[in-house]
Amino acid sequence: MKDTVSPERPYHHGDLRRALQAAAGDLLEQVGPAALTLREIARKAGVSHAAAYRHFADKEALLAQLAEAGFRELLEESRRAVASSRAGPLGRLEASGRAYVAFGARRPHLLQLMFGAAIGDWSRHPGLVAASGDLAALLAGIVREGQASGAIRAGAIGDLTLTAWSLVHGLALLAAGRRIPGATVDEAFVRQAARRATRLLIEGLRRR
Amino acid sequence: MKDTVSPERPYHHGDLRRALQAAAGDLLEQVGPAALTLREIARKAGVSHAAAYRHFADKEALLAQLAEAGFRELLEESRRAVASSRAGPLGRLEASGRAYVAFGARRPHLLQLMFGAAIGDWSRHPGLVAASGDLAALLAGIVREGQASGAIRAGAIGDLTLTAWSLVHGLALLAAGRRIPGATVDEAFVRQAARRATRLLIEGLRRR
Repeated sequence: MKDTVSPERPYHHGDLRRALQAAAGDLLEQVGPAALTLREIARKAGVSHAAAYRHFADKEALLAQLAEAGFRELLEESRRAVASSRAGPLGRLEASGRAYVAFGARRPHLLQLMFGAAIGDWSRHPGLVAASGDLAALLAGIVREGQASGAIRAGAIGDLTLTAWSLVHGLALLAAGRRIPGATVDEAFVRQAARRATRLLIEGLRRR
Repeated sequence: MKDTVSPERPYHHGDLRRALQAAAGDLLEQVGPAALTLREIARKAGVSHAAAYRHFADKEALLAQLAEAGFRELLEESRRAVASSRAGPLGRLEASGRAYVAFGARRPHLLQLMFGAAIGDWSRHPGLVAASGDLAALLAGIVREGQASGAIRAGAIGDLTLTAWSLVHGLALLAAGRRIPGATVDEAFVRQAARRATRLLIEGLRRR
């Protein structure tokens, strides 16, 4: 009996690229960025190592693609959260902060990859710079709108935005690493901590 | 001519352990935790691979030791900053926050190691759990003192502490990764950002 099954799955060009990205995303959450190899990703996608290299020059190129997709995903989730918030700018800021922390709790390795040292030189990955900038612009836009409506105190938008970003970023990473002394870091804990932390910051941001 | 130089430096037991830790700490900031190997650390300390294994069961054991030393160092720096602050509890909270961000800016890979996934199972490293708990206790103590003196609003100490911790942790990591869109992240930027962010949070923490 002749075995007609190819060792490689017959992918179209764009499909293979997507399949490799999906395999890499799954593996990333299982083993973290350090242990990820292009060989293992190719195996998971059911293609040869050489085929993987036709789509990504090296592991960093694939990680950068994953990180960029992560920023886009986080941006979409933040936009949805902001759009569904009926409160004013302070409520929208809280909604975006909670979406951020929830994203980090669900995809801890991806969030670490998006900001970590596994991707050395961002200037090689303009898509990543752009996606990260879009996320910053979303937050800055809410702060600007809040200042215009009088809900948020005066101050440089960049400073206020960085403070809000730092808070949710730090909470997301502390929760992602399950490194909060004395706490059982489960989904409910993360949700409540995000609500409390963002509200406390919002007290600081509120116009007196 | 007989070569009497031993390939291994003649270390005393405790000295070798310290030399390996020092070599690992230097390499960590150069290459990050993923690229760190016990072999490379041994080479840098001038001893054999086997000698390194006599002191550390594996790379994770050495990383855990580094992370614990990192927590102790951060704790000492925070204590000094708090002790030299002449302001009340809010000033001490700000001082500890600024010390935290400065530590992360100076030792970015160490801070990431202390909270990251490179050390998988903390229960294997009780010294690490204790050191991290001491740092949390320092912050919680300032919050408690602030509530007792009426400077800080009512609320669960754990929540208020986690919020303050999240803020400085996030800022330190965003600064460490040089991943702040539109900003040139140098020492002056980090110092100013830390001051502004902690003051904004303190407005939120202040008792009304």
